[in-house]
Amino acid sequence: MKKTIMTMPDGRELIYYDGHESIVRSTVDVRSLPDLHITPEMRHDPILDEWVVMASHRQRRTFMPPTNRCPLCPSTGDNATEIAEPEYDIVVFENRFPSLSRDTALDASIRIPSAVSRRPAHGRCEMVVFTADHDRLFSQLSQNRVRRVVDVWADRTATLSGLPGIEQVFPFENRGIEIGVTLTHPHGQIYALPFVTPRTERMLAGARRHRDQHGRDLFAELLAEERRIGERIIATNETWTAFVPATARWPIEIHLYPHRRVEDLAGLTGGERDDFSSLYLEVLRRLDALYEDPLPYIAAWHQAPVRRDRDLAYLHLELFSVRRTADKLKYLAGTESGMAVWINDSTPEQIARMVRETVP
Amino acid sequence: MKKTIMTMPDGRELIYYDGHESIVRSTVDVRSLPDLHITPEMRHDPILDEWVVMASHRQRRTFMPPTNRCPLCPSTGDNATEIAEPEYDIVVFENRFPSLSRDTALDASIRIPSAVSRRPAHGRCEMVVFTADHDRLFSQLSQNRVRRVVDVWADRTATLSGLPGIEQVFPFENRGIEIGVTLTHPHGQIYALPFVTPRTERMLAGARRHRDQHGRDLFAELLAEERRIGERIIATNETWTAFVPATARWPIEIHLYPHRRVEDLAGLTGGERDDFSSLYLEVLRRLDALYEDPLPYIAAWHQAPVRRDRDLAYLHLELFSVRRTADKLKYLAGTESGMAVWINDSTPEQIARMVRETVP
Repeated sequence: MKKTIMTMPDGRELIYYDGHESIVRSTVDVRSLPDLHITPEMRHDPILDEWVVMASHRQRRTFMPPTNRCPLCPSTGDNATEIAEPEYDIVVFENRFPSLSRDTALDASIRIPSAVSRRPAHGRCEMVVFTADHDRLFSQLSQNRVRRVVDVWADRTATLSGLPGIEQVFPFENRGIEIGVTLTHPHGQIYALPFVTPRTERMLAGARRHRDQHGRDLFAELLAEERRIGERIIATNETWTAFVPATARWPIEIHLYPHRRVEDLAGLTGGERDDFSSLYLEVLRRLDALYEDPLPYIAAWHQAPVRRDRDLAYLHLELFSVRRTADKLKYLAGTESGMAVWINDSTPEQIARMVRETVP
Repeated sequence: MKKTIMTMPDGRELIYYDGHESIVRSTVDVRSLPDLHITPEMRHDPILDEWVVMASHRQRRTFMPPTNRCPLCPSTGDNATEIAEPEYDIVVFENRFPSLSRDTALDASIRIPSAVSRRPAHGRCEMVVFTADHDRLFSQLSQNRVRRVVDVWADRTATLSGLPGIEQVFPFENRGIEIGVTLTHPHGQIYALPFVTPRTERMLAGARRHRDQHGRDLFAELLAEERRIGERIIATNETWTAFVPATARWPIEIHLYPHRRVEDLAGLTGGERDDFSSLYLEVLRRLDALYEDPLPYIAAWHQAPVRRDRDLAYLHLELFSVRRTADKLKYLAGTESGMAVWINDSTPEQIARMVRETVP
């Protein structure tokens, strides 16, 4: 793919990813954009041993603009969007309202307990625009386009992993107003984080425990057993399998694993990228056929940390939804939000059966 | 307080808590209730080292009945509710749609990976009805009534801690349709759990780490420093303090700590119970005055595990809300739900200032 790197008027980077070397992206973004003075910070909670990010400037971010003001559509004469070109293929750019920033400043007047530490929330938040077509769903993209999105994710993972201070690269897609999505144009995000996320830390600890006790890779073992048992498998092909984990927390939850242990998206072969694309589309099309409306979902890429424990990690995608019936949502109330006790009103076997029996 | 223990037609226990010994509760519940055959199970996730509860019967639970069909109101001639008496003070009863049950059965036909374990989800889920008045909010209860609710929580904690196999007692209140509350009648819940919750495990690990490294109680130290700094304090009295923690994750988050380390609600003195009641009402009244509507919130009691690490625990209440502005909610999307990375669009200092400046 051809990459064309541009700079937006406020200094942010924008990258056009195009399928053909001959395509030229030269339209200059002439908008006058205010400097946002973004200085998010992060604080380490000594009770839970987790960093918490604070980004108070984000209260001002764009909320559900009307379609003719979509900031992710190509620019037109009367709508200068984030993307200056009149058409595009796939675009990545730095979020205008990021939770992590290259700016570094801390308000020195704030006093905190000595057991708590504070640092600028250094990092990078990117938007990945999957297509110029405002009304598409990811499940409606062509397999060829999905394959190119995988290439973009892989390229961003490699690039962002090389930035100083980045410990984990996290590509994800939030879809649906039910989970607070403010822009409907098909897009995902990538967070390049200055720490290994709490959930990844716990997963690595689990993998380490299993390797120490049994000498085996926990993720590979679970995948192999699920494939042998079959009851929770949604779909599979030569190099990937999609299944509902035996400990699913969400009303809909499907994990997609490559058969070969790979550390991150950049490590996937061309064949594995092709196979992921077809498998993921099959899964998403089933999910979008479950109910009258497309399913709200979160799709989260679990990649190895950039600098350590890479041998413990196993690249996979976790896809889950808050919708528990046609007209009911799962809420994270007292048990989940208060105590991290997950209660699933369904079983993994029921979820798998329902998704398998849904014809897209 | 006087306790009158009754048995409901389907075998569940119901307890009337009354202020006077002279009150007699003898109305028999004559409803014909179907046996629900409740056999929730729990599975241990070896990757995250957490139990996940599966309660597939709960899909059928009551969702927002009309007011004249409220199952928590006193019974009338044409509405036989969960509570048979024509009036009551405070009532506790076993949830009809519990996530944990005394029944124990596992579907033996289900096969799971060998690294995953499965057990019946043994335990007890109770409803605590704070008042017979359907339209009250907790913040509108009298201080005297709140004090009696504390006594009920303490009594339930002692009783449930004595049941076989119970490892943690978790009283909480979910309030507001924004977090999925299905019954508006003022009530809370208590979960008597067969394991120490994942969040409590992490908190105890943090307390242990701090004690090993510094020889001090982490919770007591954070409380003392917050009281000295003052900037994040909401309210305080002789034996309790309410403050926004320096690592607040939610748009509104307030923790209430007793000044003396206590392991659970049963360990509070009468004076401490009085002081909690007045402080909590002050905090809740401020929160309900923040916006035009009462604030949706979750209030979660953190108590010591029943059987171990009691010396590491510090009883406190964590109160938080998903509302981030008058018309916007915080959603737990990719970063929070996918990676447990919390991003707060406000700072603890801003939250504390806003709540302090709100006049109830």
